[in-house]
Amino acid sequence: MATPRDWPAIWTFMREIAAAGETFSWDRDISEERARERWMGELPRRTVVAVDDDGAVVGSAVSGPNHEGPAAHIATASFMVDPGKSGRGAGRALGEHVLAQARADGFRGMQFNAVVDSNTRAVNLWHSLGFTTMTVIPEAFHHPAKGYVGLHIMFQAF
Amino acid sequence: MATPRDWPAIWTFMREIAAAGETFSWDRDISEERARERWMGELPRRTVVAVDDDGAVVGSAVSGPNHEGPAAHIATASFMVDPGKSGRGAGRALGEHVLAQARADGFRGMQFNAVVDSNTRAVNLWHSLGFTTMTVIPEAFHHPAKGYVGLHIMFQAF
Repeated sequence: MATPRDWPAIWTFMREIAAAGETFSWDRDISEERARERWMGELPRRTVVAVDDDGAVVGSAVSGPNHEGPAAHIATASFMVDPGKSGRGAGRALGEHVLAQARADGFRGMQFNAVVDSNTRAVNLWHSLGFTTMTVIPEAFHHPAKGYVGLHIMFQAF
Repeated sequence: MATPRDWPAIWTFMREIAAAGETFSWDRDISEERARERWMGELPRRTVVAVDDDGAVVGSAVSGPNHEGPAAHIATASFMVDPGKSGRGAGRALGEHVLAQARADGFRGMQFNAVVDSNTRAVNLWHSLGFTTMTVIPEAFHHPAKGYVGLHIMFQAF
Protein backbone atom coordinates (compact mmCIF):
# COMPACT_ATOMS: atom_id res chain seq x y z
CA MET A 1 0.00 0.00 0.00
CA ALA A 2 1.05 3.58 -0.60
CA THR A 3 1.64 5.77 2.42
CA PRO A 4 1.42 9.55 2.74
CA ARG A 5 5.23 9.64 2.49
CA ASP A 6 4.98 8.31 -1.08
CA TRP A 7 2.92 11.27 -2.26
CA PRO A 8 5.74 13.72 -3.17
CA ALA A 9 7.33 11.12 -5.45
CA ILE A 10 3.97 10.21 -7.03
CA TRP A 11 3.07 13.85 -7.58
CA THR A 12 6.38 14.50 -9.38
CA PHE A 13 5.50 12.23 -12.30
CA MET A 14 1.72 12.60 -11.98
CA ARG A 15 1.99 16.34 -12.57
CA GLU A 16 4.15 15.68 -15.64
CA ILE A 17 1.72 13.08 -17.01
CA ALA A 18 -1.32 15.31 -16.47
CA ALA A 19 0.41 18.34 -18.00
CA ALA A 20 1.36 16.36 -21.12
CA GLY A 21 -2.36 15.77 -21.78
CA GLU A 22 -1.73 12.63 -23.82
CA THR A 23 -3.05 9.82 -21.66
CA PHE A 24 -5.15 11.12 -18.76
CA SER A 25 -8.64 12.62 -18.73
CA TRP A 26 -7.71 15.12 -16.03
CA ASP A 27 -7.29 18.85 -16.18
CA ARG A 28 -3.77 19.42 -17.47
CA ASP A 29 -3.12 21.95 -14.70
CA ILE A 30 -4.80 19.93 -11.94
CA SER A 31 -3.88 21.19 -8.48
CA GLU A 32 -1.78 19.05 -6.19
CA GLU A 33 -4.60 19.09 -3.64
CA ARG A 34 -7.16 17.76 -6.09
CA ALA A 35 -4.80 15.15 -7.50
CA ARG A 36 -4.00 13.95 -4.02
CA GLU A 37 -7.70 13.67 -3.12
CA ARG A 38 -8.24 11.57 -6.21
CA TRP A 39 -5.30 9.30 -5.84
CA MET A 40 -4.59 8.76 -2.14
CA GLY A 41 -7.79 6.93 -1.35
CA GLU A 42 -9.23 5.40 1.76
CA LEU A 43 -10.93 2.02 1.70
CA PRO A 44 -12.71 0.76 -0.33
CA ARG A 45 -10.18 2.52 -2.56
CA ARG A 46 -6.63 1.18 -2.48
CA THR A 47 -3.49 3.02 -3.58
CA VAL A 48 -0.28 1.15 -4.32
CA VAL A 49 3.17 2.07 -5.60
CA ALA A 50 5.79 0.26 -7.66
CA VAL A 51 9.37 0.78 -6.53
CA ASP A 52 12.67 0.06 -8.26
CA ASP A 53 15.65 -1.79 -6.81
CA ASP A 54 16.71 1.36 -4.99
CA GLY A 55 13.29 1.81 -3.38
CA ALA A 56 12.38 4.80 -5.55
CA VAL A 57 8.70 5.13 -6.52
CA VAL A 58 8.40 4.59 -10.29
CA GLY A 59 4.64 4.12 -10.62
CA SER A 60 1.34 4.04 -8.78
CA ALA A 61 -2.19 2.73 -9.10
CA VAL A 62 -5.50 3.44 -7.40
CA SER A 63 -8.37 0.98 -7.50
CA GLY A 64 -11.85 0.57 -6.07
CA PRO A 65 -15.49 0.14 -7.06
CA ASN A 66 -16.37 1.62 -10.46
CA HIS A 67 -19.89 2.50 -9.30
CA GLU A 68 -21.72 2.16 -5.99
CA GLY A 69 -24.62 0.27 -4.49
CA PRO A 70 -26.01 -2.40 -6.84
CA ALA A 71 -23.02 -1.93 -9.18
CA ALA A 72 -20.26 -1.88 -6.56
CA HIS A 73 -19.10 -5.42 -7.43
CA ILE A 74 -17.20 -4.24 -10.53
CA ALA A 75 -13.84 -2.62 -9.83
CA THR A 76 -11.95 0.03 -11.73
CA ALA A 77 -8.38 1.27 -11.55
CA SER A 78 -6.06 4.02 -12.78
CA PHE A 79 -2.34 3.73 -13.36
CA MET A 80 0.58 6.10 -13.77
CA VAL A 81 4.21 5.21 -14.43
CA ASP A 82 7.05 7.73 -14.32
CA PRO A 83 7.67 8.55 -18.02
CA GLY A 84 11.40 8.44 -17.32
CA LYS A 85 11.07 4.89 -15.99
CA SER A 86 8.68 3.37 -18.51
CA GLY A 87 9.28 0.15 -20.41
CA ARG A 88 10.70 -1.65 -17.40
CA GLY A 89 7.66 -3.58 -16.31
CA ALA A 90 6.25 -1.26 -13.65
CA GLY A 91 2.88 -0.93 -15.40
CA ARG A 92 2.54 -4.66 -15.83
CA ALA A 93 3.54 -5.32 -12.22
CA LEU A 94 0.97 -2.77 -11.00
CA GLY A 95 -1.72 -4.23 -13.26
CA GLU A 96 -1.11 -7.77 -12.07
CA HIS A 97 -1.14 -6.65 -8.45
CA VAL A 98 -4.34 -4.63 -8.79
CA LEU A 99 -6.13 -7.49 -10.57
CA ALA A 100 -5.08 -10.00 -7.90
CA GLN A 101 -6.17 -7.63 -5.13
CA ALA A 102 -9.55 -7.00 -6.75
CA ARG A 103 -10.15 -10.75 -7.03
CA ALA A 104 -9.12 -11.20 -3.42
CA ASP A 105 -11.49 -8.40 -2.41
CA GLY A 106 -14.38 -10.26 -4.01
CA PHE A 107 -15.01 -8.03 -7.03
CA ARG A 108 -16.61 -9.87 -9.97
CA GLY A 109 -14.79 -7.98 -12.71
CA MET A 110 -12.83 -4.86 -13.58
CA GLN A 111 -13.71 -2.05 -15.97
CA PHE A 112 -11.52 0.71 -17.39
CA ASN A 113 -13.50 3.76 -18.49
CA ALA A 114 -11.07 5.80 -20.53
CA VAL A 115 -7.98 4.20 -22.09
CA VAL A 116 -6.69 6.54 -24.81
CA ASP A 117 -6.55 4.77 -28.17
CA SER A 118 -3.23 6.38 -29.11
CA ASN A 119 -1.67 5.12 -25.86
CA THR A 120 -0.72 1.91 -27.64
CA ARG A 121 1.49 0.65 -24.86
CA ALA A 122 -1.39 0.81 -22.36
CA VAL A 123 -3.94 -0.69 -24.77
CA ASN A 124 -1.64 -3.61 -25.51
CA LEU A 125 -0.71 -4.11 -21.88
CA TRP A 126 -4.33 -4.32 -20.73
CA HIS A 127 -5.24 -6.69 -23.54
CA SER A 128 -2.31 -8.92 -22.55
CA LEU A 129 -3.62 -8.94 -18.97
CA GLY A 130 -7.01 -10.27 -20.03
CA PHE A 131 -9.04 -7.12 -20.75
CA THR A 132 -11.33 -6.89 -23.77
CA THR A 133 -12.05 -3.58 -25.48
CA MET A 134 -15.85 -3.51 -25.19
CA THR A 135 -16.21 -0.34 -27.26
CA VAL A 136 -14.26 2.73 -28.31
CA ILE A 137 -16.05 6.04 -27.77
CA PRO A 138 -15.12 7.90 -30.95
CA GLU A 139 -13.15 11.16 -30.71
CA ALA A 140 -13.74 11.30 -26.97
CA PHE A 141 -10.18 12.46 -26.17
CA HIS A 142 -8.31 15.40 -27.64
CA HIS A 143 -4.63 14.58 -27.96
CA PRO A 144 -2.38 17.65 -28.20
CA ALA A 145 -0.56 16.31 -31.28
CA LYS A 146 -2.88 13.67 -32.75
CA GLY A 147 -6.17 15.53 -32.40
CA TYR A 148 -9.37 13.66 -31.55
CA VAL A 149 -8.80 10.00 -30.72
CA GLY A 150 -11.03 7.34 -29.19
CA LEU A 151 -11.38 6.20 -25.61
CA HIS A 152 -11.47 2.45 -25.00
CA ILE A 153 -13.85 1.03 -22.44
CA MET A 154 -12.29 -2.24 -21.32
CA PHE A 155 -13.63 -5.03 -19.14
CA GLN A 156 -12.77 -8.42 -17.82
CA ALA A 157 -14.95 -10.70 -15.72
CA PHE A 158 -13.28 -12.60 -12.90
CA MET B 1 -32.34 25.52 -13.65
CA ALA B 2 -33.01 23.91 -10.30
CA THR B 3 -32.72 26.09 -7.21
CA PRO B 4 -31.94 25.09 -3.62
CA ARG B 5 -35.68 25.36 -2.91
CA ASP B 6 -36.28 22.42 -5.27
CA TRP B 7 -34.11 20.07 -3.26
CA PRO B 8 -36.68 18.78 -0.73
CA ALA B 9 -39.01 17.72 -3.55
CA ILE B 10 -36.17 16.10 -5.50
CA TRP B 11 -34.92 14.25 -2.43
CA THR B 12 -38.38 12.80 -1.75
CA PHE B 13 -38.36 10.71 -4.93
CA MET B 14 -34.58 10.37 -5.20
CA ARG B 15 -34.45 8.62 -1.84
CA GLU B 16 -37.22 6.27 -2.97
CA ILE B 17 -35.44 5.51 -6.27
CA ALA B 18 -32.08 4.88 -4.60
CA ALA B 19 -33.65 2.68 -1.92
CA ALA B 20 -35.42 0.55 -4.53
CA GLY B 21 -32.00 -0.37 -5.98
CA GLU B 22 -33.43 -1.14 -9.40
CA THR B 23 -32.13 1.63 -11.61
CA PHE B 24 -29.35 3.62 -9.91
CA SER B 25 -25.75 2.68 -9.14
CA TRP B 26 -25.80 4.49 -5.83
CA ASP B 27 -25.75 3.17 -2.31
CA ARG B 28 -29.33 2.25 -1.51
CA ASP B 29 -29.11 4.08 1.82
CA ILE B 30 -27.24 7.11 0.45
CA SER B 31 -27.34 10.04 2.85
CA GLU B 32 -29.22 13.17 1.93
CA GLU B 33 -25.99 15.17 2.21
CA ARG B 34 -24.13 12.97 -0.25
CA ALA B 35 -27.05 12.83 -2.67
CA ARG B 36 -27.34 16.60 -2.59
CA GLU B 37 -23.60 17.04 -3.26
CA ARG B 38 -23.94 14.76 -6.26
CA TRP B 39 -27.04 16.27 -7.72
CA MET B 40 -27.12 19.97 -6.96
CA GLY B 41 -24.11 20.91 -9.04
CA GLU B 42 -22.32 24.13 -9.77
CA LEU B 43 -21.14 24.96 -13.27
CA PRO B 44 -19.93 23.23 -15.39
CA ARG B 45 -22.60 20.92 -13.96
CA ARG B 46 -26.21 21.91 -14.52
CA THR B 47 -29.22 20.70 -12.56
CA VAL B 48 -32.73 21.05 -13.93
CA VAL B 49 -36.21 20.02 -12.82
CA ALA B 50 -39.38 19.04 -14.65
CA VAL B 51 -42.58 20.41 -13.15
CA ASP B 52 -46.19 19.45 -13.74
CA ASP B 53 -49.08 21.82 -14.46
CA ASP B 54 -49.36 22.61 -10.77
CA GLY B 55 -45.67 23.51 -10.50
CA ALA B 56 -44.78 20.37 -8.54
CA VAL B 57 -41.35 18.88 -9.21
CA VAL B 58 -41.81 15.49 -10.91
CA GLY B 59 -38.30 14.84 -12.16
CA SER B 60 -34.76 16.16 -12.28
CA ALA B 61 -31.55 15.81 -14.26
CA VAL B 62 -27.92 16.72 -13.70
CA SER B 63 -25.47 17.05 -16.57
CA GLY B 64 -21.88 18.08 -17.16
CA PRO B 65 -18.57 16.80 -18.54
CA ASN B 66 -18.15 13.01 -18.37
CA HIS B 67 -14.40 13.34 -17.85
CA GLU B 68 -12.04 16.30 -17.50
CA GLY B 69 -9.19 17.94 -19.35
CA PRO B 70 -8.63 16.45 -22.82
CA ALA B 71 -11.92 14.51 -22.53
CA ALA B 72 -14.13 17.31 -21.18
CA HIS B 73 -15.88 17.81 -24.53
CA ILE B 74 -18.14 14.78 -24.01
CA ALA B 75 -21.06 15.34 -21.66
CA THR B 76 -22.91 12.95 -19.41
CA ALA B 77 -26.18 13.18 -17.53
CA SER B 78 -28.30 11.43 -14.91
CA PHE B 79 -32.07 11.49 -14.65
CA MET B 80 -34.68 10.70 -12.03
CA VAL B 81 -38.45 10.86 -12.37
CA ASP B 82 -40.85 10.51 -9.46
CA PRO B 83 -42.02 6.87 -9.71
CA GLY B 84 -45.53 8.04 -8.91
CA LYS B 85 -45.44 10.42 -11.88
CA SER B 86 -43.78 8.25 -14.50
CA GLY B 87 -45.14 7.63 -17.98
CA ARG B 88 -46.23 11.24 -18.47
CA GLY B 89 -43.30 12.45 -20.52
CA ALA B 90 -41.14 14.00 -17.79
CA GLY B 91 -38.13 11.81 -18.65
CA ARG B 92 -38.40 12.60 -22.34
CA ALA B 93 -38.77 16.32 -21.67
CA LEU B 94 -35.73 16.28 -19.40
CA GLY B 95 -33.71 14.29 -21.94
CA GLU B 96 -34.57 16.65 -24.78
CA HIS B 97 -33.71 19.66 -22.65
CA VAL B 98 -30.39 18.25 -21.47
CA LEU B 99 -29.36 17.30 -25.00
CA ALA B 100 -30.22 20.75 -26.33
CA GLN B 101 -28.33 22.41 -23.49
CA ALA B 102 -25.25 20.24 -24.03
CA ARG B 103 -25.21 21.13 -27.73
CA ALA B 104 -25.60 24.81 -26.85
CA ASP B 105 -22.74 24.51 -24.37
CA GLY B 106 -20.47 23.23 -27.14
CA PHE B 107 -20.14 19.60 -26.10
CA ARG B 108 -19.36 17.25 -29.00
CA GLY B 109 -21.39 14.30 -27.73
CA MET B 110 -23.05 12.71 -24.71
CA GLN B 111 -22.26 9.43 -22.98
CA PHE B 112 -24.28 7.49 -20.42
CA ASN B 113 -22.15 5.19 -18.27
CA ALA B 114 -24.63 2.93 -16.52
CA VAL B 115 -28.14 2.41 -17.92
CA VAL B 116 -29.59 -0.72 -16.32
CA ASP B 117 -30.59 -3.26 -18.97
CA SER B 118 -33.78 -4.23 -17.15
CA ASN B 119 -34.87 -0.57 -17.02
CA THR B 120 -36.55 -1.04 -20.39
CA ARG B 121 -38.35 2.28 -20.31
CA ALA B 122 -35.06 4.17 -19.95
CA VAL B 123 -33.23 2.07 -22.55
CA ASN B 124 -36.00 2.66 -25.08
CA LEU B 125 -36.28 6.34 -24.26
CA TRP B 126 -32.58 6.99 -24.80
CA HIS B 127 -32.55 5.03 -28.03
CA SER B 128 -35.50 7.08 -29.25
CA LEU B 129 -33.57 10.26 -28.43
CA GLY B 130 -30.63 9.26 -30.62
CA PHE B 131 -28.38 7.27 -28.29
CA THR B 132 -26.68 4.07 -29.41
CA THR B 133 -25.85 1.28 -26.98
CA MET B 134 -22.09 1.02 -27.55
CA THR B 135 -21.71 -2.01 -25.29
CA VAL B 136 -23.39 -3.73 -22.36
CA ILE B 137 -21.10 -4.57 -19.44
CA PRO B 138 -22.36 -8.04 -18.49
CA GLU B 139 -23.78 -8.63 -15.01
CA ALA B 140 -22.50 -5.25 -13.85
CA PHE B 141 -25.66 -4.42 -11.86
CA HIS B 142 -27.35 -6.51 -9.22
CA HIS B 143 -31.12 -6.05 -9.38
CA PRO B 144 -32.94 -6.99 -6.16
CA ALA B 145 -35.47 -9.18 -8.02
CA LYS B 146 -33.83 -9.99 -11.36
CA GLY B 147 -30.32 -10.71 -10.14
CA TYR B 148 -27.30 -9.75 -12.23
CA VAL B 149 -28.19 -7.68 -15.28
CA GLY B 150 -26.09 -5.68 -17.72
CA LEU B 151 -25.23 -1.98 -17.76
CA HIS B 152 -25.52 -0.18 -21.09
CA ILE B 153 -22.92 2.35 -22.08
CA MET B 154 -24.65 4.69 -24.51
CA PHE B 155 -23.32 7.46 -26.70
CA GLN B 156 -24.38 9.95 -29.30
CA ALA B 157 -22.15 12.37 -31.21
CA PHE B 158 -23.51 15.85 -31.84
